[in-house]
Amino acid sequence: MTLNVGVIGVGMIGREHINRLANTLVGARVVALADVDAKQAEAVAAGLPGAKVYPDGEALIASPDVQAVVVTSWGPTHAAYVLAAIRAMKPVFCEKPLATTAEACLSIVEAEIASGRHLVQVGFQRRYDKGYRALKKAIDDGAIGAPLMIHCAHRNPAVPEAYVSDMAIVDTFIHEIDALRWLIGDDYVSAQVLKPRNTKHTHARLDDPIIVLLATKNGVRIDGEVFVNCRYGYDIRCEVVGEEGVASLPEPESVVLRKEAKLSTTIMQDWKLRFIDSYDVELQDWIEAAKAGKVNGPNAWDGYFAAVTADACLEAMHHGGVAEIKTATRPKFYD
Amino acid sequence: MTLNVGVIGVGMIGREHINRLANTLVGARVVALADVDAKQAEAVAAGLPGAKVYPDGEALIASPDVQAVVVTSWGPTHAAYVLAAIRAMKPVFCEKPLATTAEACLSIVEAEIASGRHLVQVGFQRRYDKGYRALKKAIDDGAIGAPLMIHCAHRNPAVPEAYVSDMAIVDTFIHEIDALRWLIGDDYVSAQVLKPRNTKHTHARLDDPIIVLLATKNGVRIDGEVFVNCRYGYDIRCEVVGEEGVASLPEPESVVLRKEAKLSTTIMQDWKLRFIDSYDVELQDWIEAAKAGKVNGPNAWDGYFAAVTADACLEAMHHGGVAEIKTATRPKFYD
Amino acid sequence: MTLNVGVIGVGMIGREHINRLANTLVGARVVALADVDAKQAEAVAAGLPGAKVYPDGEALIASPDVQAVVVTSWGPTHAAYVLAAIRAMKPVFCEKPLATTAEACLSIVEAEIASGRHLVQVGFQRRYDKGYRALKKAIDDGAIGAPLMIHCAHRNPAVPEAYVSDMAIVDTFIHEIDALRWLIGDDYVSAQVLKPRNTKHTHARLDDPIIVLLATKNGVRIDGEVFVNCRYGYDIRCEVVGEEGVASLPEPESVVLRKEAKLSTTIMQDWKLRFIDSYDVELQDWIEAAKAGKVNGPNAWDGYFAAVTADACLEAMHHGGVAEIKTATRPKFYD
Amino acid sequence: MTLNVGVIGVGMIGREHINRLANTLVGARVVALADVDAKQAEAVAAGLPGAKVYPDGEALIASPDVQAVVVTSWGPTHAAYVLAAIRAMKPVFCEKPLATTAEACLSIVEAEIASGRHLVQVGFQRRYDKGYRALKKAIDDGAIGAPLMIHCAHRNPAVPEAYVSDMAIVDTFIHEIDALRWLIGDDYVSAQVLKPRNTKHTHARLDDPIIVLLATKNGVRIDGEVFVNCRYGYDIRCEVVGEEGVASLPEPESVVLRKEAKLSTTIMQDWKLRFIDSYDVELQDWIEAAKAGKVNGPNAWDGYFAAVTADACLEAMHHGGVAEIKTATRPKFYD
Repeated sequence: MTLNVGVIGVGMIGREHINRLANTLVGARVVALADVDAKQAEAVAAGLPGAKVYPDGEALIASPDVQAVVVTSWGPTHAAYVLAAIRAMKPVFCEKPLATTAEACLSIVEAEIASGRHLVQVGFQRRYDKGYRALKKAIDDGAIGAPLMIHCAHRNPAVPEAYVSDMAIVDTFIHEIDALRWLIGDDYVSAQVLKPRNTKHTHARLDDPIIVLLATKNGVRIDGEVFVNCRYGYDIRCEVVGEEGVASLPEPESVVLRKEAKLSTTIMQDWKLRFIDSYDVELQDWIEAAKAGKVNGPNAWDGYFAAVTADACLEAMHHGGVAEIKTATRPKFYD
Repeated sequence: MTLNVGVIGVGMIGREHINRLANTLVGARVVALADVDAKQAEAVAAGLPGAKVYPDGEALIASPDVQAVVVTSWGPTHAAYVLAAIRAMKPVFCEKPLATTAEACLSIVEAEIASGRHLVQVGFQRRYDKGYRALKKAIDDGAIGAPLMIHCAHRNPAVPEAYVSDMAIVDTFIHEIDALRWLIGDDYVSAQVLKPRNTKHTHARLDDPIIVLLATKNGVRIDGEVFVNCRYGYDIRCEVVGEEGVASLPEPESVVLRKEAKLSTTIMQDWKLRFIDSYDVELQDWIEAAKAGKVNGPNAWDGYFAAVTADACLEAMHHGGVAEIKTATRPKFYD
Repeated sequence: MTLNVGVIGVGMIGREHINRLANTLVGARVVALADVDAKQAEAVAAGLPGAKVYPDGEALIASPDVQAVVVTSWGPTHAAYVLAAIRAMKPVFCEKPLATTAEACLSIVEAEIASGRHLVQVGFQRRYDKGYRALKKAIDDGAIGAPLMIHCAHRNPAVPEAYVSDMAIVDTFIHEIDALRWLIGDDYVSAQVLKPRNTKHTHARLDDPIIVLLATKNGVRIDGEVFVNCRYGYDIRCEVVGEEGVASLPEPESVVLRKEAKLSTTIMQDWKLRFIDSYDVELQDWIEAAKAGKVNGPNAWDGYFAAVTADACLEAMHHGGVAEIKTATRPKFYD
Repeated sequence: MTLNVGVIGVGMIGREHINRLANTLVGARVVALADVDAKQAEAVAAGLPGAKVYPDGEALIASPDVQAVVVTSWGPTHAAYVLAAIRAMKPVFCEKPLATTAEACLSIVEAEIASGRHLVQVGFQRRYDKGYRALKKAIDDGAIGAPLMIHCAHRNPAVPEAYVSDMAIVDTFIHEIDALRWLIGDDYVSAQVLKPRNTKHTHARLDDPIIVLLATKNGVRIDGEVFVNCRYGYDIRCEVVGEEGVASLPEPESVVLRKEAKLSTTIMQDWKLRFIDSYDVELQDWIEAAKAGKVNGPNAWDGYFAAVTADACLEAMHHGGVAEIKTATRPKFYD
């Protein structure tokens, strides 16, 4: 059985997912496209035999030719499309964010529960990264005992002027927010943000670096550095300290060079390359789960939890002090 | 366009390739099977909608339903099937060895040239390994200047009693023979084999470890350790020393543990896992090349060169001294 | 010229320093000993040709035979001996702490200034560690640009029952307090302490692990993990994040083993071995500086600053929130 | 007791040893100097209170003021001074080589045996290197089982024009010759030399790199790369492959940098720095052993064995093929 997928939003990430579905992954085909820029959608469709362009996302979702939906449109439009897909009882893969407010995320959660079906997956691809999976396996296998602390860092070589302080949380650290919660199977209860002196390489509207401190229900403490003008590379680090040992995320594979007085490996520059394999694994898993009527990856509740946590981080960043992370009670539906 | 593939030989590696073609890769389907054990072929076909069992490899190759052939039968049968595929003008992917003698390899080379088409690929999967590719890229990019020496090691934790001395060359080091030649774009001219004292973990019919010394046309010197009862893991190492620096094969990605007085990463035990990703890349590349009427991977000439080199290594191993590596002249067809 | 040294306190660390002065280092000899346990002092003196036992530290300091003093007695007695040495205008090397209160440290500072001579060195040996020195050199050479953050960890495999929560600051993290300040040439302004869930390997009177957060005058943010029942080893880590790059403390040299499915190096268990070389370098430097009428190592002001910082950490640990670090103004004497 | 040492030869290495004996080490003083350049000896003596200049090495050795002798003169003069010291029954530390021919080394061995006293130590300092010692300890502790192979490399960034092919053996690989024999407690039986294509950075009278192959009595096989124009640094590597695992020489401690797309440590450029600590340990050990009438370090037999091995390497290098390593029978005196 081949899953007939409709894609809403044919920007950069949309086109990448379309390419994956059409050329790299198995078990799916792209049969429908929609975009606010209809010409752009037509252009993409021209290269996709059998793909039809719809006037809007709602029409695409409603089409009987579409069995499952991928939402890669502009963030503020996500919630409406996801809700429409739920109403249509169609599996939907939504790139982050699930919605731009925690309230909207919660309404998605409620709609999904009301539908009685597991339909929504959010695009937090790190859960599909080989390194993170190996780290989670080590923890789950008991290699380090019960986790007590996580030290992590999310570093980019540079960001454009359009990248401002809040984005350090909602675009960057959001990945840690979802991945760490999944990694240790624990929920956050509070957030605090430390502001070191700014690097001279930042600009007026961006505090860079920052350190986000999170506490979990089980008492795990997390310190997460976000440094998006670190200059030297795109570098994702994560060390989990447990009662019996410490486990760290693997460094990505690299040739080892002995040259010009240095023993070195290469640090990537481009975030797109760092997790490129995980996007394939993520979407392949979604295809198979969608066919089976399941969601294996981050679900609507995870999207909601990430949104509430990000809000608390922003509050702490703007007002100082410790912000509580208060969510609705986790519904049994997501157990 | 989907490539209709027939697979001859449904043993372990045959079934793995069938599974790849059917479930993991895109652009191909398995439509035909043949095996000396017809029941086994029927059993595999039962799980493959649309796959038909043929009485023998020749019949499979001759079938108009089969567009391309994968040969994963017992080594001594390879040459006949490959020659039949060439006669039928069908692309053929043949697991190593291409043939059990250099002469038979050469007759395949000649048949392919006579056919005027590039049809034959040999299953040396290391050329598709991410790590080897990164190492080759570093060399080709000039990171270490012109290569002068290669130090490498091929270690297995243990082998069964059925594994005897010659297999260290023809089953184990054969991978280095092909991969190193490709890595530095150079041909071998002589071989020598050193025999250290045997490990106590070997058996009467296996000299283990050995060190194979190769010299190339350009004067590069290679020392390759083969140690198949090394106990500690499956470990493939390769260091290329150039005029400006030294580059080494990446260690496979692994969680870093600090535990019980050790800072450690994990060394694999199972050779099948070490190169598992490369098999997918290899066969996907073959599918696409086959459709395009090309061969991107190791070709019949490479299979022949490996066979001649292995023969020289065996001669050196059995008789001591330095064995010359003498091949036919490389035909322009393979430029 | 040989420096005639008197040692007050012949417990474990006292005897180690005596052994260094007598057998390993050059330019000094131990001529005088004192200890509350006179028998113990006599026993040590028996193995030291030419060493005389004094009834108490004051008598030792006063003796015209003693040119310089090493104080390795019980912590609460340090201040009095150091003050006595200053009054006698004799160079004094005092093991940490300089005094048990910040006030007492300050009175030493004042006495030293009043004496007009640089006489006091405090035993923070990390400044003499090869690894820390290399790290400081990298920073001072501009390899990573201006420091913005420090992530560090101080881990012990286990501590005895007698080790209680305050000791995590005054005995353990005190080393980071001095070393980090020296490393980046900056002063602390505030402290905060985070308490993760306790490891099950701690006991009722010890919160373990904790995370100490320090902010400096220049806006550098430090997170320092203290985990004294980490089980796996004695592990000191320090990563300095700067505007142009990141520098980390070297891992101590270790044989690299490939064995039993692990690629590993050894992590030390015994803190005494981790910095053993630095004690020699430290005391040799002190001997030479004492002869030259200088203090190169951590001085009385450093001892005072560490004491004030430790007090703030304790306050933060006991009462939560952020504790200000307020010191007297740095006297020009210590520029 | 202080050992009164006379030093013959005050060139670079002589002055370094004099400085060690006078300022860094304990238990010795330099009381006598001799050099073919008497002015040079006078100049050095001027900075050494109590040191007297002798007209020649023989006079120095004969002086009743001299208890032990350090020979750091020009290589061809070593043997005569060592023999004179033996006749005078004085402990002698002789920089490598012990003598310029194996025959001369053997006559020293015979003279020492005839004297009935252990008097001669040769300056192979690697046996005193922390890293080599840790590697030997791992082997001796059985961490890797019985050794089967050693892969090693001795790389220098560059050499001057005066450095010609033979020096790759007698000045460079000679260190591996002594150190590896000591490391695994085994003797060599044959040598072979492979010549890869020359690096373009060498000159007409130097074959660079070469690979030296040694076989031992116990059947261990050694491949040792010597590459003295490797450009990138001074890099000493050594991997011992045993029946149960593999152990490698530690990389020297280095700050870890993340900078400009590289994760790197520093490789030294200057061979003098690589083993600088080992010279101190070596000479301190010699002082203590000399006082005790013993030799702990490499002895005359080791010096002889190294000379015979180097001769065989040279023979193999010049004439190709495998050169036998034939020594006299090891006298019981050296058990």
